[in-house]
Amino acid sequence: MPGSCSFRVIHRAGGARAGEFQTPHGRVQTPAFAPVGTRGALKGVTHRDVLDLGAEIILTNTYHLHLRPGAPLIAQAGGLHRFIGWDRPVVTDSGGYQVFSLGDRREISEEGVVFRSHLDGSLQQLTPENVVDIQAQLGSDVAMAFDECPSYGVSEIEVRDSMERTLRWARRGRDRFLDTTEHPDVLEGEVSNSGQVQFGIVQGGVFKALRDESARGTVALGFEGFAIGGLSVGEPVAVMYDIVEHTTQSLPDDRVRYLMGTGTPQDLVECVARGVDLFDCVLPTRNARNGQLLTREGPLSIKQARFAEDLRPPDQDCECYTCRRFSRAYLRYLFVAGEMTARTLNTLHNIHFYLDTMRRMRNAIELGSFETFRQRFHETFSRRPRS
Amino acid sequence: MPGSCSFRVIHRAGGARAGEFQTPHGRVQTPAFAPVGTRGALKGVTHRDVLDLGAEIILTNTYHLHLRPGAPLIAQAGGLHRFIGWDRPVVTDSGGYQVFSLGDRREISEEGVVFRSHLDGSLQQLTPENVVDIQAQLGSDVAMAFDECPSYGVSEIEVRDSMERTLRWARRGRDRFLDTTEHPDVLEGEVSNSGQVQFGIVQGGVFKALRDESARGTVALGFEGFAIGGLSVGEPVAVMYDIVEHTTQSLPDDRVRYLMGTGTPQDLVECVARGVDLFDCVLPTRNARNGQLLTREGPLSIKQARFAEDLRPPDQDCECYTCRRFSRAYLRYLFVAGEMTARTLNTLHNIHFYLDTMRRMRNAIELGSFETFRQRFHETFSRRPRS
Repeated sequence: MPGSCSFRVIHRAGGARAGEFQTPHGRVQTPAFAPVGTRGALKGVTHRDVLDLGAEIILTNTYHLHLRPGAPLIAQAGGLHRFIGWDRPVVTDSGGYQVFSLGDRREISEEGVVFRSHLDGSLQQLTPENVVDIQAQLGSDVAMAFDECPSYGVSEIEVRDSMERTLRWARRGRDRFLDTTEHPDVLEGEVSNSGQVQFGIVQGGVFKALRDESARGTVALGFEGFAIGGLSVGEPVAVMYDIVEHTTQSLPDDRVRYLMGTGTPQDLVECVARGVDLFDCVLPTRNARNGQLLTREGPLSIKQARFAEDLRPPDQDCECYTCRRFSRAYLRYLFVAGEMTARTLNTLHNIHFYLDTMRRMRNAIELGSFETFRQRFHETFSRRPRS
Repeated sequence: MPGSCSFRVIHRAGGARAGEFQTPHGRVQTPAFAPVGTRGALKGVTHRDVLDLGAEIILTNTYHLHLRPGAPLIAQAGGLHRFIGWDRPVVTDSGGYQVFSLGDRREISEEGVVFRSHLDGSLQQLTPENVVDIQAQLGSDVAMAFDECPSYGVSEIEVRDSMERTLRWARRGRDRFLDTTEHPDVLEGEVSNSGQVQFGIVQGGVFKALRDESARGTVALGFEGFAIGGLSVGEPVAVMYDIVEHTTQSLPDDRVRYLMGTGTPQDLVECVARGVDLFDCVLPTRNARNGQLLTREGPLSIKQARFAEDLRPPDQDCECYTCRRFSRAYLRYLFVAGEMTARTLNTLHNIHFYLDTMRRMRNAIELGSFETFRQRFHETFSRRPRS
């Protein structure tokens, strides 16, 4: 495996796996959740807090960091880890998803995507090759290939076209990655992390035949790990689970499987059961800022009047700082009063909840009791907000 | 001294004092700075962070907490410390300053102040007596007497009227405090902190004769500590220093002297030199949120373009988390990008700067080198933002 990453599965429970992913910036115990710091910071919490919560890997975004502050500055600072003050593993998403979300401010061609910056309207281009180069400058531990992510509801023909283009882009991106890994001098900028590895992204929407083709083609390119992209874009949850289960079976057993941009706590449990090793999602942090706290008994909307005099912690069994020190009444009061610290305390709790759920899954897999965990989890955690 | 607070001066350097203020929630080494968490939270940082920064006392506000969430809830939660998750000493300002800031939404009479809540327009009343009762329920370590705080530029006759009313209010508030301390059952709510003490507030604007009268009258009432109120309201800095110097001389040597709502780092140094033991001010936290970082070489406006590629920490000599881990370039980038975490990191730094300045002053007083410290401080720290 090029780069200095390695992955091994240590325990199994049905389709679920517990493993270790070694990176130049340390070990990630899988299944793992990567909190999202799109622009190089998690909203409302410091990296010190995130480390304290036990996160072993975070996600940032190539698209955002490329536009501002730019990869050259970050390389000059010694790379992303140094620049953002986070010494542990980092994944950089390629920006494909973000660029396609720009709608009519972008134009896709075989070459890549030309778009107007959402910041200053300047004309920008991302290609499979320059996305590799930018990520080399950023120096993340895991660089993602540049993919196209079609919306849900698009016809099979369109999804096929898009998937095939993603495959062609994957080959170009992989070639560029291997070239520049062997000959870093071909890069314009500096390489900030010589141990960086590259993950390919399987697309194909909700069509199993397309997922098969995409997986076959992507795996053949020899990436160090494989992501499942293009889910959690509006399809029914049962369909997502079905596609995840189908796709993981087409991926090599000895490489990390990363489900991108997903999901709810139930999704984590169900997709770990289906063989996923790594997740990222803005949900815990975004919902925290909107006043939704996740608890073992389900989501809790802290702004509700019924919590005004509720002196219990958000989650009685939770060990996080927020739950150990603060009541629902205090958190509701702060939230309603518009105090920034409400968002911070809610975010600390939700990240803890996600990371703790992952830890409990790892333990259960190790102990051979994952199915029991899974059942109990669903018995107590309801997707519907309690109201 | 009623309550379980005590104060002793341990070292002196000219007018400057280094001492220890013991409260039911621990010791405060003076001179001390109390970060401001008006509504029971510091904006953008957690109490855990504030403790980690070395703060030994914080300020909250009776007016705000009375209107929301209300003292009964806080008493029910076991008092303010428990409710807000801060185990160390707390001062509650009486709310006088806030009520007078309401302008035509309040009416002052001899009885007290009737006003419309800024939250729901409801009619509310604060009196010297109920402010004592509310603070008893909150259970702060230091309760402030209810005072009237005239604006700068008001005539001497008006300031005299106001100062005399504040004195009459101080007597009523003190009587109520002593009554309820001896007979807690006369209170409607619960007493959350039986060791609470009460500080009187000296008013009198910029008129020395009025300050003298106010100090004499307030001291005669036997408060456990004394505040200087009604400064930093628009008067020239030299006038403020002069009034502070004049007023501290009229205050007992064996009680804490607390200068309210002040000030800049220079103000801290100059007022410590004039015998002040305790300060509070929103400036370090508010300015942090606006992108102004305080450094030993003066204020630094992080949003300026010249910091875009500046990879140095905000303050080269600073030991805070922000300066140890982040560059001006990163902090500027986060601030310009509107990331919440920028405000958190800036706030951590500025609180550290204030607390560190206090620590360095205490050390200098203990070592007999306060005058040298004071000179050097002014040589390197310029009030004018560097631009």
